[in-house]
Amino acid sequence: MKIKEQLSKRSKKEIKQAGSKIKARIVALITDFGTKDHYVGTMKAVMLSINPEIRFVDITHEIFPQNIKQAGYLLWATYKYFRAGTVFVCIVDPGVGSERRMLGVRTKDYIFLAPDNGLLNFVFATDNVLEEIELDENKFRACLPKQISYTFHGRDIFAPVAAYITKGMAISRFGKIVVPRKIKENLFVDSASSSTQACILHIDTFGNIVTNIQPSATEMLERIESVLIGDKLISSKIRYYYEAPDDVPCMLIGSSGLLEVAVKNDNAARILNVTIDSHVEVYWK
Amino acid sequence: MKIKEQLSKRSKKEIKQAGSKIKARIVALITDFGTKDHYVGTMKAVMLSINPEIRFVDITHEIFPQNIKQAGYLLWATYKYFRAGTVFVCIVDPGVGSERRMLGVRTKDYIFLAPDNGLLNFVFATDNVLEEIELDENKFRACLPKQISYTFHGRDIFAPVAAYITKGMAISRFGKIVVPRKIKENLFVDSASSSTQACILHIDTFGNIVTNIQPSATEMLERIESVLIGDKLISSKIRYYYEAPDDVPCMLIGSSGLLEVAVKNDNAARILNVTIDSHVEVYWK
Amino acid sequence: MKIKEQLSKRSKKEIKQAGSKIKARIVALITDFGTKDHYVGTMKAVMLSINPEIRFVDITHEIFPQNIKQAGYLLWATYKYFRAGTVFVCIVDPGVGSERRMLGVRTKDYIFLAPDNGLLNFVFATDNVLEEIELDENKFRACLPKQISYTFHGRDIFAPVAAYITKGMAISRFGKIVVPRKIKENLFVDSASSSTQACILHIDTFGNIVTNIQPSATEMLERIESVLIGDKLISSKIRYYYEAPDDVPCMLIGSSGLLEVAVKNDNAARILNVTIDSHVEVYWK
Repeated sequence: MKIKEQLSKRSKKEIKQAGSKIKARIVALITDFGTKDHYVGTMKAVMLSINPEIRFVDITHEIFPQNIKQAGYLLWATYKYFRAGTVFVCIVDPGVGSERRMLGVRTKDYIFLAPDNGLLNFVFATDNVLEEIELDENKFRACLPKQISYTFHGRDIFAPVAAYITKGMAISRFGKIVVPRKIKENLFVDSASSSTQACILHIDTFGNIVTNIQPSATEMLERIESVLIGDKLISSKIRYYYEAPDDVPCMLIGSSGLLEVAVKNDNAARILNVTIDSHVEVYWK
Repeated sequence: MKIKEQLSKRSKKEIKQAGSKIKARIVALITDFGTKDHYVGTMKAVMLSINPEIRFVDITHEIFPQNIKQAGYLLWATYKYFRAGTVFVCIVDPGVGSERRMLGVRTKDYIFLAPDNGLLNFVFATDNVLEEIELDENKFRACLPKQISYTFHGRDIFAPVAAYITKGMAISRFGKIVVPRKIKENLFVDSASSSTQACILHIDTFGNIVTNIQPSATEMLERIESVLIGDKLISSKIRYYYEAPDDVPCMLIGSSGLLEVAVKNDNAARILNVTIDSHVEVYWK
Repeated sequence: MKIKEQLSKRSKKEIKQAGSKIKARIVALITDFGTKDHYVGTMKAVMLSINPEIRFVDITHEIFPQNIKQAGYLLWATYKYFRAGTVFVCIVDPGVGSERRMLGVRTKDYIFLAPDNGLLNFVFATDNVLEEIELDENKFRACLPKQISYTFHGRDIFAPVAAYITKGMAISRFGKIVVPRKIKENLFVDSASSSTQACILHIDTFGNIVTNIQPSATEMLERIESVLIGDKLISSKIRYYYEAPDDVPCMLIGSSGLLEVAVKNDNAARILNVTIDSHVEVYWK
């Protein structure tokens, strides 16, 4: 009853409209499966067997091993650019086969499927989650293969669920409706944050270091004095990579609105000897 | 005549039905071409020029250099999940340009194109091959580019053949029909095998070591005493990765039904100092 | 007026016909964005939001960092195999955000979008460019996101432009028409070249070294005495990789008609200790 009450607070029309948008049949994938295995191809095979009209977009399959935060960031940095109706299948799942839960989440425009391990925290923290489901295999046993493996739920559970959703099935069909969670943790650091502590969310192909420091859209880098990254203090500011002086690590606002540290025509992470777990502090003016 | 007799033993209706299913227009690719070259893109370009309706699924393009057995395993682990009618283009082809033969193979649901070097052995050994063709360029010269390169038959031969097959052409159109071969070699090792010798088929992105040991579906790991891999004897058994104790290499049944060796949250191949050519033995109770 | 005069020299009918072919809705991508970031997925998301019918072909996203020449070569080696109407989005763009120009180029069959940094030189040098445009954001501001990042024009400019082109918009809609440039530099070296200097365009997944030496289609390798690559003189000639003796670096004509150096079943670049910047000379008979 409690859940029902809460649900009734939301516009049922809004929910229905969102559901009716699921027509683009785009499935976007983000996993740590790599590209040298058959895992991703097999998931696509399963989905195409159920719905041959699905269009796949690979966000990436090279999430650092078990790096749930990095996966969450990359998902957050890209998902808003997708067509309404896109279904996101997000698998970084060291707990596969154990009792860990699997989630289905619906926002106004999108549906997300992921293990319940924090991967969707950026979505919960920044978007309006209309519906949250704990997947329950017993509710859709007929949609699944006879034998479900212990180690590849991407193929045996997530892929069929995603494919049936692209055919118009509501996510509530696949599990227990729960009250959408609120994430209280501050995933981003801004000038209003009381602490100087920040962190690295991602190191990109070019070696650019993406932090969780989120300058405001109006002040940009103005209020930032300097950033300590590893044991190096960065205070030079640029707008784009090419603007940097040679060999000087600089901060800039990257394409997803977060503070990045870069070295022009070079690999900042290597030069600063930084990994995704390195320490970051930000000093505001 | 001999071939014709053998062919007549099979239901012609069965063959015809299989042929009529080729409508999904899915081409699945497995190669060792890597992803930093234009090779895969060029093959797709050629195929789309012939049939713009083709949908591609990349199984992987990162087969270890010339590792035909690994390619055969990965193909076997995924192909049954594809929609009926899928055409598999399988290219690990160190002999390209030489007199090596190229095969077209049809099972009830699928068509496979590959060089005749063992890549399809897992298919021959475990599926019912209805038709086997030796590709003969002279039979379809008009479908091919004027000049066929010596080094890129993926682009100049396999891609056009695959594309025309997705348009409904029978594989028999592309070569000489031969009697489907039987593979007598035991590709998998099970409790009925007389020898303890096994081998590694694949090391996955996570470092999990996939062997050719195939426990029966009912006995699972029960009958297995231990597995020697490199110089390490493994006897701990788990059902899923997360169940393993820390730092202990364990065996489990992987998602394709084969015995794997894994280390929880770590890279078993690196920890055990194992490559795909390392020695494996299995001791049954 | 000068431009108009020059334009009038070309058949307007030819231009119109080419434009009317843009129906295949294939977008081919070549970038140095790598595959571990969300960059490529985000560009595809943006394009699918504008035109959900687009089919993507990834040529490669692993261009060596800032290696514009390599990207130009790989584009050249593949683009002619694509269906007429394909739009190529080519991004190796160390100058992103600076005043560097962005180009739209149309040939009889294709449209190319790229930063103006030499990436399209192989196209200019070997194809008939019918139309060249300098992209001017002010001409299509309404097609772009409200805020254009300084660092990701792939997402904010190239992707929307490409998507609208697949919907039938002419490239002239997106900028200033300029007189198509002529490239005078010899990108390839042949037997008519006065100098012995050549260069490496690409090192492929297998370690094969692709040079810019372009033997004539009739003479093939006949006129070549030897090739100096790094500090090693190569004079053995083969037609295909398998034909080579073991452990002997050999030259052959690769699948794009250029002289390659290869070692059978091995990595020539590693064995010869060669990088893409290594010195090459060719000695003609």
